Amino acid sequence: MAGKRPAVPGNTSDPEASGLAAFAAELKWEDIPTSVRHEAKRALLNMFATAFAGCGEPAVEKALAVMSRFSGDPQASLFGRGQRRDAALAAFVNAMAANIHDYDDTHPATIIHPTAPVAPALLAFAETAPRTGADLLRAFLIGAEIECRIGNAVSPGHYTRGWHITSTCGVFGAAAGVGALLGLDPQQFVWAFGNASVQSAGLVEALGTMSKSISVGNAARNGLLSALLATEGFAGPPGPLSGSRGFLRVYCDEPKFGKLLDGLGEDWEIARNTYKPYPVGVVLNPVIDASLQLSSLNGFRADKAVTVELTGHPLLRQRTDRPDVRTGRESQVSAQHAIAIVWRRGKAGLDEFSDAAVAETLGAGRPEVNFIDDPARDVASVGMAVRMRDGTTLQAEISAARGSPENPLSDSDLERKLMTTADRIGFTGNVGALIDAVWALDELADAAMVSRMANPAGTSDA
Amino acid sequence: MAGKRPAVPGNTSDPEASGLAAFAAELKWEDIPTSVRHEAKRALLNMFATAFAGCGEPAVEKALAVMSRFSGDPQASLFGRGQRRDAALAAFVNAMAANIHDYDDTHPATIIHPTAPVAPALLAFAETAPRTGADLLRAFLIGAEIECRIGNAVSPGHYTRGWHITSTCGVFGAAAGVGALLGLDPQQFVWAFGNASVQSAGLVEALGTMSKSISVGNAARNGLLSALLATEGFAGPPGPLSGSRGFLRVYCDEPKFGKLLDGLGEDWEIARNTYKPYPVGVVLNPVIDASLQLSSLNGFRADKAVTVELTGHPLLRQRTDRPDVRTGRESQVSAQHAIAIVWRRGKAGLDEFSDAAVAETLGAGRPEVNFIDDPARDVASVGMAVRMRDGTTLQAEISAARGSPENPLSDSDLERKLMTTADRIGFTGNVGALIDAVWALDELADAAMVSRMANPAGTSDA
Repeated sequence: MAGKRPAVPGNTSDPEASGLAAFAAELKWEDIPTSVRHEAKRALLNMFATAFAGCGEPAVEKALAVMSRFSGDPQASLFGRGQRRDAALAAFVNAMAANIHDYDDTHPATIIHPTAPVAPALLAFAETAPRTGADLLRAFLIGAEIECRIGNAVSPGHYTRGWHITSTCGVFGAAAGVGALLGLDPQQFVWAFGNASVQSAGLVEALGTMSKSISVGNAARNGLLSALLATEGFAGPPGPLSGSRGFLRVYCDEPKFGKLLDGLGEDWEIARNTYKPYPVGVVLNPVIDASLQLSSLNGFRADKAVTVELTGHPLLRQRTDRPDVRTGRESQVSAQHAIAIVWRRGKAGLDEFSDAAVAETLGAGRPEVNFIDDPARDVASVGMAVRMRDGTTLQAEISAARGSPENPLSDSDLERKLMTTADRIGFTGNVGALIDAVWALDELADAAMVSRMANPAGTSDA
Repeated sequence: MAGKRPAVPGNTSDPEASGLAAFAAELKWEDIPTSVRHEAKRALLNMFATAFAGCGEPAVEKALAVMSRFSGDPQASLFGRGQRRDAALAAFVNAMAANIHDYDDTHPATIIHPTAPVAPALLAFAETAPRTGADLLRAFLIGAEIECRIGNAVSPGHYTRGWHITSTCGVFGAAAGVGALLGLDPQQFVWAFGNASVQSAGLVEALGTMSKSISVGNAARNGLLSALLATEGFAGPPGPLSGSRGFLRVYCDEPKFGKLLDGLGEDWEIARNTYKPYPVGVVLNPVIDASLQLSSLNGFRADKAVTVELTGHPLLRQRTDRPDVRTGRESQVSAQHAIAIVWRRGKAGLDEFSDAAVAETLGAGRPEVNFIDDPARDVASVGMAVRMRDGTTLQAEISAARGSPENPLSDSDLERKLMTTADRIGFTGNVGALIDAVWALDELADAAMVSRMANPAGTSDA
């Protein structure tokens, strides 16, 4: 892309912003590899699944109660809720819902959840200004690419310092994606980045609280507005990313400028995207796989287990050795609860990490777990050894957990995830038709069709 | 206040947030000194003046064009514009307008512009839920105090790193102020701080561009929403300010925790507020004073001046030695333009720092200025020596510029500033009545009266 950099004439103060702007303005649908296009659809399918899972959460209800007082004409769907709001609020609410359980997709290098801040902004906009499905997929890929590359450039120090990276980088992704739908020119893209740069916020401190979801919703909403403002000539600084007081230097102690443009358009970040099989912290995935494997053994009885030994990456112990958790939220990072509930129920869905499920394992007892650190292991692997009362030891070895880069969820897995969450909220629409529409999105004349299908009672705007 | 800290039971993780919350929840109107109450009125008067000055700027027009698509029922006034929008957008637009020229008030220790992010949020809210003038003044003082104290705790490193401190701290001030109008309890105030902490944004990089105004508008809007969410039980983290990944540690390399609570309720930051006599960078104020002094001398003719020598604090040279400026915006920090235009017109208002005025001094010529650094001088002082063609030298010595802490604008100065900016936009309302209402605000049963008076054709919501 180096040859395309001078697309914003005279903007030598931020070659990175100029390069990303040129990429976003010039990318051709035909130049996007088929596998990358398909990954975009997988990301959207997973987004609908997790948006359904989150759309009725108390934080969503409360945010809607307040923010509906400041919402204009109903323009766009609230997935799974049978309501519409103006496009800015719809983008906010759908992003919030899609990410609220951290059950959405993960870009491993940055731990950004790429889709929640981006896709809801695009889909909301597309309900106000019809776009083809191919346009929407292209815009999503542009948005997610820029979001993750900005994340790469500030990782790992940015998250470590305390920034909620999905929110802080998501606003750029939403701005770039909506900018792509609007057909911004390179200068306008740089303005959109500037308008996004002054709205980048979100703190790790807020994880596990309702506040976390504000910054995710804002990323989608404010990205949308950043691009719309840019089309009106609302001008930003020339150096929004790599300027002397631009985003990268202010939000990161050691930014890696090269991460922004190297391989752009050839090496796609979305190709590294992962999807969660279970609504838990990603380090617990292999433990759940192992627990499911053992529980399916003929004659296995949890009440005959004495102790569990887990051999895994040190992060497993550090993050999940939590024998005494009391809330559903906390249980998402408790190995003791996860093993106990999987052995009781033989599954690990949203209902297995609820307050009720936590009360159940607290009452019935959780296994004693001994952690053995093995820094040589991948975080997606675990060895589980269960000593039984009869003196025998049952073992399970997971080399690459489901959902890890080496063992990705299949398309069918993602379809089942969507069907399950739809079922859980009593979805009244046609899930199968929604799935088909997402897979066929590049052939749809009106991308917003999928939003309306995800919001079957969408004419009710109360 | 130390004795009041345990107001949020069990919240030992953030004594600073708890202490500020207790202050905000418990402050009595009767306990606020008369001089402090009066300073709040001065700040509001100045806010209306600068909001009038900014309300027709292109950035405001563009933001309104985009954001009105996402605005609900017209609830609140857009000062000077004869329009109303929903309270969230009104807060955004009025804050943006009040700060857009940086002609608003300044808290010298932090260079926060305290009033623009806070007062517009309160006034917009008060149009949706009537409050007395005393309630509004109390809420404003709480908001401005918390905003400036958070600013003190992150200064000077926060701004130096590149944060637009008016925006980043303003959102806390607006949240606290609206929270006071809502009568939040201490726990709810801590939640409101948490909701604000994930929305704190704004970059110095954007100064001089339209993007700057987004984060100022957001500070008002998002502060309003942060408090409204808190009343609904929308819960934030226990450590929004001094938690391990809270605002202070993430946004500042060396936070000064003691600045938050020391002397709270006794030592008021608003008492240190300053107001600008001229729409320029504050270091230029003494230069304009000196230029006005000389130009009023009998027989003084600018075209007979050969060179100007300025003896001042080194910041004067560093920030204002700009002989070749081409735009009104740049001219606000050009000593050469400032001297030239004051000598031509005998005044230094908004019209003297417009693109047209810059073209005028560029065409007619600007004086040659020699700067002499004197680190011992206060930034509010300057010595000016003008060598004339006839060999004589004219001198002016300004020890404390107008608007500096030692030479504050009088109440009448502020009234004239408001009358001048109202006149400039062809204000159709009764400026005298608005001034009287602000001075009598503590006796008004309905604080929103001043908002409506500042928006005389306020029934037009187009």
